[in-house]
Amino acid sequence: MNRNLTVRPDRIAADIEALARLTEPDRPWTRRAFTPRFLDGRTYLEAAMRAAGLEPRLDAGGNLIGRRKGRAGSGKALVVGSHSDTVPDGGRFDGIAGVVAGLEIARALADRGIELEHNFEVIDCLAEEVSLYGVSCIGSRAIAGTLPADWLRREADGRTLADGIATVGGAPSDLASARRDDIAAFLELHIEQGPILQAEARNLGVVTAIAGITRIEIEVHGRADHAGTTPMHARSDALTAAAAIVAWIDLMAKARAATAATTGHFAATVGEFRIEPNAANVVPSYARLLVDARAEKRAEMEGFLTDLDAYLAATFPGAGGPSATTRRVSDNHPTPSDPAVLATIEEAADAVGVSHRRMASGAGHDMAWFARIAPAAMVFVPCRDGRSHCPEEWAEPEAIALGTEVLLQTLLRLDRGALDEFAHHDGRS
Amino acid sequence: MNRNLTVRPDRIAADIEALARLTEPDRPWTRRAFTPRFLDGRTYLEAAMRAAGLEPRLDAGGNLIGRRKGRAGSGKALVVGSHSDTVPDGGRFDGIAGVVAGLEIARALADRGIELEHNFEVIDCLAEEVSLYGVSCIGSRAIAGTLPADWLRREADGRTLADGIATVGGAPSDLASARRDDIAAFLELHIEQGPILQAEARNLGVVTAIAGITRIEIEVHGRADHAGTTPMHARSDALTAAAAIVAWIDLMAKARAATAATTGHFAATVGEFRIEPNAANVVPSYARLLVDARAEKRAEMEGFLTDLDAYLAATFPGAGGPSATTRRVSDNHPTPSDPAVLATIEEAADAVGVSHRRMASGAGHDMAWFARIAPAAMVFVPCRDGRSHCPEEWAEPEAIALGTEVLLQTLLRLDRGALDEFAHHDGRS
Repeated sequence: MNRNLTVRPDRIAADIEALARLTEPDRPWTRRAFTPRFLDGRTYLEAAMRAAGLEPRLDAGGNLIGRRKGRAGSGKALVVGSHSDTVPDGGRFDGIAGVVAGLEIARALADRGIELEHNFEVIDCLAEEVSLYGVSCIGSRAIAGTLPADWLRREADGRTLADGIATVGGAPSDLASARRDDIAAFLELHIEQGPILQAEARNLGVVTAIAGITRIEIEVHGRADHAGTTPMHARSDALTAAAAIVAWIDLMAKARAATAATTGHFAATVGEFRIEPNAANVVPSYARLLVDARAEKRAEMEGFLTDLDAYLAATFPGAGGPSATTRRVSDNHPTPSDPAVLATIEEAADAVGVSHRRMASGAGHDMAWFARIAPAAMVFVPCRDGRSHCPEEWAEPEAIALGTEVLLQTLLRLDRGALDEFAHHDGRS
Repeated sequence: MNRNLTVRPDRIAADIEALARLTEPDRPWTRRAFTPRFLDGRTYLEAAMRAAGLEPRLDAGGNLIGRRKGRAGSGKALVVGSHSDTVPDGGRFDGIAGVVAGLEIARALADRGIELEHNFEVIDCLAEEVSLYGVSCIGSRAIAGTLPADWLRREADGRTLADGIATVGGAPSDLASARRDDIAAFLELHIEQGPILQAEARNLGVVTAIAGITRIEIEVHGRADHAGTTPMHARSDALTAAAAIVAWIDLMAKARAATAATTGHFAATVGEFRIEPNAANVVPSYARLLVDARAEKRAEMEGFLTDLDAYLAATFPGAGGPSATTRRVSDNHPTPSDPAVLATIEEAADAVGVSHRRMASGAGHDMAWFARIAPAAMVFVPCRDGRSHCPEEWAEPEAIALGTEVLLQTLLRLDRGALDEFAHHDGRS
C-alpha cells in the first residue's frame, strides 16, 4: 500500500493488540460488557483518549465519550463511534475497529494541529452486543433516548441492568440526560462481517442502510405416530412439513436476493429449529422454527411476510395434515443512512483513492440508533473470509487505516459545511 | 357381535382392567419392567395362571411361564405369549392383550375339558419394551439363547440388568437354561398399533413378517455464518441441506410404500433431528438426523440404503457446499412368520368367520425372537385410531376375544398335527 495517509496503521494495530490482550484468558477474545475485563478495556480507552487530546467523560448511559472542543465552542459535535464490548469467544475487531478509528482520527488531527469548527467526539457505546441481560445497544439507545425504562429492571446473576450501568460509571436514575440533540453527524467504521468486499477486492463499503430485521416463529403441529406401524400415507409428520417450509424460505430468500441490485439486500435464515418428541421411533408431532429475515427495503420484507403467510395457509391448512402458525417475535424497520453524509463519504473515498461500493448492512449497529437523532452513516472495511463473532475474525490494520482515512476526510468535509452544501443542492433548507 | 365363541370377552376385559389398575398412580398407564408395579402385575398373572389351570414358574431369564401338561407328557409345547410391561405413560393393551389371550385360552380349554397332545404354555416375556436398561426383549432373547452376555452388566440407577433379572425371580448366572428347544409353535396376539384394520373394518391381521429395522444416522456439515451479513448465495447451510434430505427420504419411502402389494411394507421416518449452533442469527453449521427405516423385504431395505447413499454423495459432495455422511447405527433383518403356522391361522380365521388380511408388523415383537427357535406367527387385532404407547391406546375386548378365538382354533389345529400335514403337502420332511 503506497498511499500517503494522514492516519497511521501501526498505531491502529497497537490499539487493537492492546485491547485484544484484555480478554478472558481461557476464551479469547472475550470482553463482555459489564465484566471486570470490560472495565479494563475502558481504562485503556480512557488513557488512549487523553493521549489523543480528547477529554473523556462517562454519560448517564454508561457511554465513554472523549471530546475535543471545536473553534465554535458550544456548537454541535461531529461524532465517530462504535463499541468495545465483544460476544463470548468473539473477535478482536467487531466494534473495536470503529472505536480505534475514532482514536486515530483524534491523534491525526492533533499531529497536524488541525482545529475543527465543530466539537469532535469519539464514543465507545455501552453494550452493543447482546449482553448477559439479553438485550443489545444499551448505550446508543440511551443516547437516542429510546432505551425502554423497563429494561433497567432486567436481571442477570442477581443484578439488574441498572446496577450494571452504575457499575461502569453510568447514572441509571438520570438516564434522560444521556439523550443528545447536539450531534451534527455520526460516523461509524466497522468490519463488514461478510465476504463481499474481500471477494470483489474493494477497500470500502459505503453503507446505504442497516437492514430491517424481522423474526418470525413458525410452529408446526402434526401427530405423533408409531414410526413402524403407521403407513406413510396415514401420517401427519410435523418434520416433513417443517422441512418443506425451510426449503420454501430458502428458495424465496434466494429469489429476492437475486434482484438485490434493484430491490436491495435480502436474506432469510432458519437459525433455530427443533422437533418433538425427537424420538427414533415416533413420527414427529411438533416442530418450531425461528426465521430471521433481513431487508434493506421495507417493501421487500412486507412482500416476504405476505407470501409466507399465504404459502403456509395454502399448504398446511391442518385438515388431517399438519398445520402451521406464525408469530412475529420482533419487527424492526430498515434504517437508511443519511444521503448527504453518504455522498460526502463517497467524495472523500474518491479523494483518498480507495475502491468502494455501496452496500447494505445485514447486521445491526450503533449507527441505527444515532440515525434517529442525527445525520448518520457508516463504512465497512473488508475482513477475512467474512468471519465474525468468532476467534478467527480478522481485518488488516492497513484496511482499517484506509477506512479511517476516509472517515477523517469525510469529517473535514462535514466540518467545512458539506451538509449545508448538500442541503442547498438538494433543495433542502 | 353374535358369534358363538369358546372364549369369553368379559373375562378378557376383567383381566385387562385388573392389570390396568396396577399402574404408577400419577402417570397411567405405566408398569415398567423391574419396578415394584411390574412385580404386582406378575403376582396377579401368577394367580390368574393357577386359576386357569396353568402351573406357573419363572425361568432363568425372568419369564413367567404357566404350563398345562399335554397327553404326550414330555412332548413339545405349543406356546402363546407376549409381555405385561409397558412404556412410560403407555397403554393398557400393548403386550398385555397377548398375555391375557393366553390366559383366556387356558380357561377355555379348562371350561370345555379339552386335553391337548402337546404341553400348552402361556409366557409373559420379561421386558419386551425398552426398559431403564435401554434395551428390549430381554425375556424372549433369553428363550432364543441370544441375550448378549455383556448386556447383563448394563447399569441403571446403580443396579445391573443381572440384578434386575434376579429381582423379578430369574437366575442371571444360569441364563443358558432359559434357552428352549422344545417349542412346537409360538403364537402371539397383539394390538395392531396402526390404523389399517380399523380403516378397512377387518377383525384380524395375519402377520406375514416382522419388518426389519435399520437405523441410519446422517450428519450434515455446513458452515456457521452471520445470518445478516452473509449473502444467500455464499452460504453452506446445514439446515437447508438437512431439510432436503428429510424431503427426499419421505418421497422415497412413500414411493416404496405405494408398491407395498408386491414389495411389502415399507416406511422411513426421520424421528430425531437437531441442528447447531441453533442460534437465531447464525446460519446452521451442523445437522444430525436419525432415520428409522422398516421393510418387510430385505431387498427393499437394501435398495433404499443404496439409493440414499447415492443421493447424498451426488447432492452433497461437500465442495464448498454442505457435506453429508451416514452411519448405520443398527440393522436388523425382517423376520418372516412360519408359512405353515400362517396358513393354519388363516384356516382357523375362516372357520371362526372373522374378516382378515395379511399384513406386516412394522413394530418389533417377542415373536421375532421365538421365530429363531420355533415355527412362529402372530395376529393383530384392531385398535382405536392406531394409537399406541400412549394413554389413549384402546382395543375392544370383543375384538381381542375374536383374535383369541382364532388363536385357540389355530392351537387345536396345530395340536392335531397341522404342521406335519403342511410339511407333507409342502414337500418338507
